[in-house]
Amino acid sequence: MSFDPATLTYDEKGLIPAIAQDAESGDILMFAWMNAESVARTLESGKVTYWSRSRQSFWVKGETSGHVQTLVDFRIDCDRDCLLVLVRQEGPACHTNRRSCFYTAVREGDEVELMKPMV
Amino acid sequence: MSFDPATLTYDEKGLIPAIAQDAESGDILMFAWMNAESVARTLESGKVTYWSRSRQSFWVKGETSGHVQTLVDFRIDCDRDCLLVLVRQEGPACHTNRRSCFYTAVREGDEVELMKPMV
Repeated sequence: MSFDPATLTYDEKGLIPAIAQDAESGDILMFAWMNAESVARTLESGKVTYWSRSRQSFWVKGETSGHVQTLVDFRIDCDRDCLLVLVRQEGPACHTNRRSCFYTAVREGDEVELMKPMV
Repeated sequence: MSFDPATLTYDEKGLIPAIAQDAESGDILMFAWMNAESVARTLESGKVTYWSRSRQSFWVKGETSGHVQTLVDFRIDCDRDCLLVLVRQEGPACHTNRRSCFYTAVREGDEVELMKPMV
């Protein structure tokens, strides 16, 4: 079946959540949002392209930092209201320079830092 | 540092997105939402508890189906506005009876089904 970004379910702001997973390690790298046009651009270019809610503009991941995400596989969930992009990540995915944004764990009631910024 | 669910960033509906990942395989199982109280219940009980937006009620995953999610690790992202729960998943996570909700891929412009319902 041919895929059309318009068949996805977007929220009232026209956005759909997108989870980025390292295609090699399986680690979750980050979470962001796309709109229909960024879905189309991601699939066409192979460069993961989010919609920045703070800047209200397209956000080609790594365009300024060089920490690009190359699309390896593009997945849709059962309700068609969430995306999973498997990626090849160049360097850190997080703006704190850590490989993943999910570097904090809650263990026995305390916050624990799981990883340090990359050097 | 002691963890307080009130320190997370919730959206205008009081919700925060939560990604569930299989702690063993690393597969992404599903995506849903929590509020501050479901975060607290998840951490206290060790049973992953979402907030059902459609039913507007707490949703202890697997409470009726038996397909429970036992919490293995609870993670927070850099912006404190997204959660990652690593879980031990009993049976299928998806309401379609598939192990994961992300069973559809888009490849060369076509939708491809990656997995069948569990038997």
